[in-house]
Amino acid sequence: MTTAEAIRTILDGRWAEVRQEVRSTLDPEVFGPPEELLSMEQHRERTLQAVLELTKTDFGRNGFTTEQGGTNEHGAAVTAIEMLGHADLSVFVKAGVQFGLFGGAIANLGTQRHWDAYLPGMLDGTLLGSFAMTETGHGSDVQSLLTTATYLPESDEIEIHTPSIAARKDYIGNAARDASLAAVFAQLVVDGEDHGVHCVLVPIRDESGATMPGVTIGDCGAKMGLRGVDNGRLTFDHVRVPRHNLLNRFGTIDDDGRYHSPIESRGRRFFTMLGTLVRGRITVAGAAGSATRTALTLALTYGQHRRQFEDPEGGEVVILDYLGHQRKLLPRLARSYALMLAQNALVEQMHRIAAGEETSEDAQRELEARAAGLKAIGTEHATSTIQACREACGGAGYLSVNRFADLKADTDVFTTFEGDNTVLLQLVAKGMLTSYSDAFHDMDSRGAFFFGARQVTEAVIERTIGGSLIQRLISGAPGRDGDDALSDRGGQLDLFEDREKHLLETLALRLRRAQDDDADSFAIFNDAQPHLLLTARAHIDRVLLEAFVAAIDEAPEGEARDLLEQVCDLFVLSTIEADRAWFIEHGRLSQSQAKSVVGLVDERCAELRPHVQTLIDAFAIPMAWRETELLEFLGDT
Amino acid sequence: MTTAEAIRTILDGRWAEVRQEVRSTLDPEVFGPPEELLSMEQHRERTLQAVLELTKTDFGRNGFTTEQGGTNEHGAAVTAIEMLGHADLSVFVKAGVQFGLFGGAIANLGTQRHWDAYLPGMLDGTLLGSFAMTETGHGSDVQSLLTTATYLPESDEIEIHTPSIAARKDYIGNAARDASLAAVFAQLVVDGEDHGVHCVLVPIRDESGATMPGVTIGDCGAKMGLRGVDNGRLTFDHVRVPRHNLLNRFGTIDDDGRYHSPIESRGRRFFTMLGTLVRGRITVAGAAGSATRTALTLALTYGQHRRQFEDPEGGEVVILDYLGHQRKLLPRLARSYALMLAQNALVEQMHRIAAGEETSEDAQRELEARAAGLKAIGTEHATSTIQACREACGGAGYLSVNRFADLKADTDVFTTFEGDNTVLLQLVAKGMLTSYSDAFHDMDSRGAFFFGARQVTEAVIERTIGGSLIQRLISGAPGRDGDDALSDRGGQLDLFEDREKHLLETLALRLRRAQDDDADSFAIFNDAQPHLLLTARAHIDRVLLEAFVAAIDEAPEGEARDLLEQVCDLFVLSTIEADRAWFIEHGRLSQSQAKSVVGLVDERCAELRPHVQTLIDAFAIPMAWRETELLEFLGDT
Repeated sequence: MTTAEAIRTILDGRWAEVRQEVRSTLDPEVFGPPEELLSMEQHRERTLQAVLELTKTDFGRNGFTTEQGGTNEHGAAVTAIEMLGHADLSVFVKAGVQFGLFGGAIANLGTQRHWDAYLPGMLDGTLLGSFAMTETGHGSDVQSLLTTATYLPESDEIEIHTPSIAARKDYIGNAARDASLAAVFAQLVVDGEDHGVHCVLVPIRDESGATMPGVTIGDCGAKMGLRGVDNGRLTFDHVRVPRHNLLNRFGTIDDDGRYHSPIESRGRRFFTMLGTLVRGRITVAGAAGSATRTALTLALTYGQHRRQFEDPEGGEVVILDYLGHQRKLLPRLARSYALMLAQNALVEQMHRIAAGEETSEDAQRELEARAAGLKAIGTEHATSTIQACREACGGAGYLSVNRFADLKADTDVFTTFEGDNTVLLQLVAKGMLTSYSDAFHDMDSRGAFFFGARQVTEAVIERTIGGSLIQRLISGAPGRDGDDALSDRGGQLDLFEDREKHLLETLALRLRRAQDDDADSFAIFNDAQPHLLLTARAHIDRVLLEAFVAAIDEAPEGEARDLLEQVCDLFVLSTIEADRAWFIEHGRLSQSQAKSVVGLVDERCAELRPHVQTLIDAFAIPMAWRETELLEFLGDT
Repeated sequence: MTTAEAIRTILDGRWAEVRQEVRSTLDPEVFGPPEELLSMEQHRERTLQAVLELTKTDFGRNGFTTEQGGTNEHGAAVTAIEMLGHADLSVFVKAGVQFGLFGGAIANLGTQRHWDAYLPGMLDGTLLGSFAMTETGHGSDVQSLLTTATYLPESDEIEIHTPSIAARKDYIGNAARDASLAAVFAQLVVDGEDHGVHCVLVPIRDESGATMPGVTIGDCGAKMGLRGVDNGRLTFDHVRVPRHNLLNRFGTIDDDGRYHSPIESRGRRFFTMLGTLVRGRITVAGAAGSATRTALTLALTYGQHRRQFEDPEGGEVVILDYLGHQRKLLPRLARSYALMLAQNALVEQMHRIAAGEETSEDAQRELEARAAGLKAIGTEHATSTIQACREACGGAGYLSVNRFADLKADTDVFTTFEGDNTVLLQLVAKGMLTSYSDAFHDMDSRGAFFFGARQVTEAVIERTIGGSLIQRLISGAPGRDGDDALSDRGGQLDLFEDREKHLLETLALRLRRAQDDDADSFAIFNDAQPHLLLTARAHIDRVLLEAFVAAIDEAPEGEARDLLEQVCDLFVLSTIEADRAWFIEHGRLSQSQAKSVVGLVDERCAELRPHVQTLIDAFAIPMAWRETELLEFLGDT
């Protein structure tokens, strides 16, 4: 086994076989980026055919329980869709809408009746569906959706209505062209009482493809990317459906027309419903990672061959030998490693919960927070890294044939769909605050002073990956002032944890003030928003590092493991470098230590330079999936 | 006059009339972004027609001297093309190729003979041309081009030849479809001696549009953006043209077949030739600014209307009221102001030189360095700001109808064409080092020690804009440790200058070592590359601030000026914030000062929030140029 193969094994993780199967079986002719620019209609048709092709495999079924007609192989399902991120991303998104969002809504919000009626068609592609949550006026704040679903006792029906343009369902995938059924999120009104957002299945096209009466379907038209996805707009004019079309796992209307729910609080009910749909975020994070690895593979291959400017020794310099070029790409490569390993851990956790191996509410909450965080940080990383890769290939990077155009345009929306990244980071921070206050149940009775006394109120950092290992490393770390503090893994972990704790504790202190009677709570929250976002980022950095450390620990000793240690080092040091002002300002690093970080990043880049080919080979992206003309210029120099 | 109009007057600068004329006359139907997705061929035809439309105006003529058939209104020409940056950017690029690059090569590298023969057709659109410099194998290092131009005394011709794929001319605008003549850059060989890169006019299509014998024209095909520009590839198989097709201002072949040049050094000759073509970079910086201002206008308009999440006081919060949202956009708005004012100063300087009002070599060198720097920083700013603006509009930002798709895709190549930004920043730094060593003529005799003794070898910061004013402000600044040091303009200028000087002096010291006999000069240069890039950035920051300060100083007292002071403050503070690690590490700011900068940026954002509409109104982008559906959701809430 080569070093690259050994690293690939580690990166491939628990569902390595699924990855290998996708690598060897998915036909690039069907699933790859189209070789020539298609019209929007052609691209949509091509994308539909690719999704239908997937229905012939276990691709969709894996994501559902046996009761739902699936195989209960949730981790395999999400791993496969992550691999689709190397393909035409329109296929990833359209498949995600069909199996993940539409199918997922039925599976997670519906009951056996709905599973039996709709999931077989959803899985075999005879029933194409949409997930109609976002409205023109409400994307991030979906609790405030305006569409209404009013129960009509006289006919035992639910009436779906769009009261305004702002209430129009917007950007809905699969809606403009293909879907016949939509899972519509709306405020459920029973007997004059609003029970909050619920999901109702509403037919939008009949078998001939004609739009159903009362439904108006618009087309979002051309988009920046994802040209194969038919995003549309849905407007409902008092459209009636049977009562049983309500997906009623978390809220039902009984035969007597009365509303019941196992969850009393409207807010909690809604967020419980949303929580079951977490998989969408996980797959977006995964596909963003795949697309980023494709871009890095291309740009780093180019960088190892492209030569520019004379070498004083004769010949021309390979551009990846320039420190400036290494610095553009190698810290990003290191972060991509960290993200992939953290994603693997996330998928494992999701699988355990979905397969019923883990059932605690805490585990679910933790999953949601981590999914939100990795989606935000992973998609942000994708956007900026694919951009850096394009620029690293100069004019060649601008030609469509060299892939960056699509990679950039298709992934661009990832930062704002499936939850706007800023909103998601706030969610992460709020989750951290909740855990923090949970750890100190007497928070409310003690008041601000309690928060001020740091020595007794340290935030508890929950280690979700490799807990005892992390503790051991931190305990064994040299003192923070030591010369090697920055290079020691325990010291690095300590630094990450310490930053997170400090940010969290001081954030809690700030936000406490909002509870004062005369406080302008919006102003206090708003002033603290950058602090809140920073806290979430620090948390995710720590999650990434823990996942990296745990993966290295599980790896057999050898060259692969040693190389991963170096990559991890670059990830840590470049992360500290980017935020080193904070570390100095808060007395965590001395001026000279902070300054030395810059040099350490330079050194790690130089050390990894000879191993770049190994590190991208380990991504194991089949050549057929990354054909370009980037190296054409080498033909004849 | 409203405050917005007063600010507009300041931003519009010396060629305000040109801006107003473009605003009122340029037909969006012809020059605006196409309303629907066109095929590549349709888009190319539309773009050509728009360029031909421009030939009916003084648009092109303004950029040439009277001897060249122009009006000598260079500043007006560049200002007009900057305004085209609000239109379909394909038109900007294709017009730039025709008038700026192709026309500019003939004007600046040719002599009266060429002006008479080609410029009238170039100006009236009967002669369409290309600028064939970049090759597949050489983009940044154009001194190493491989195409040859060999003088053949027997026939008094020059033979153009492409010896390899790497030597193929690539990404050449106007070449794939429209140009009949190409200005081809090639190594000129006369009597067996290579005289370095020169430019030769080579017909590539005949009057019928057929490709000339020996010429092969390829099509670069689909690109990320700029779909209306027909980029192509040119290969020459021993193609012969008359000797007089050599543009011979800087190097000529006489009637006896002997080569002559007024500039002895090959390198200096080539860089002198390149220097005359500086206008391309200036216009790219200008158009990048226009596109960025369009994006900011759209995103800030959306941000002022879009509401999301409940306000504790009732209703929903306007998203621009969130500090996090302000922080995404307002520092970028402030930097856009700084860039526009610096661009105006740059264009004025270019005009003075082009119109013969200023003739010193230093002025030309300074112009080239500043153009390189503003192009690099301005296009980098464009790419990241347009991205931020897209994300600030969520899913709506992803729809083509809302403009960001084209703005992003079209400007994306700006960071790497007309000089790769990294290479340009190196050019800036090298220019700084040259000025530095010029200021100390005895550098070589004194050696490294000389550089070590800082008190006598301070780098001289040349103030090119508002010199005495800047000096006065710095002299009047409070001490660096004072509480208000960061808020005082003189203190801010001092901080920017000081950073630049320190970076430059220490850079010089590092690079000195490369002159030692046993030094690995590549390694020394390479290790210093990040330092070098940082030095260039610090320099450009200072140039931006000086331009901002000078423009404020010239503005009449009043609300507009006061508001500009606030914008300038945000520009300075957010710039310091981004690099505050450096300021602490080098003892320029205390930990607490650095920490306070973060809060000061927050404050300035909040202060500017109520003035955002005024600040974008001042850009005065006609409504017809920025029609979108972004505010559609307001129709019916």
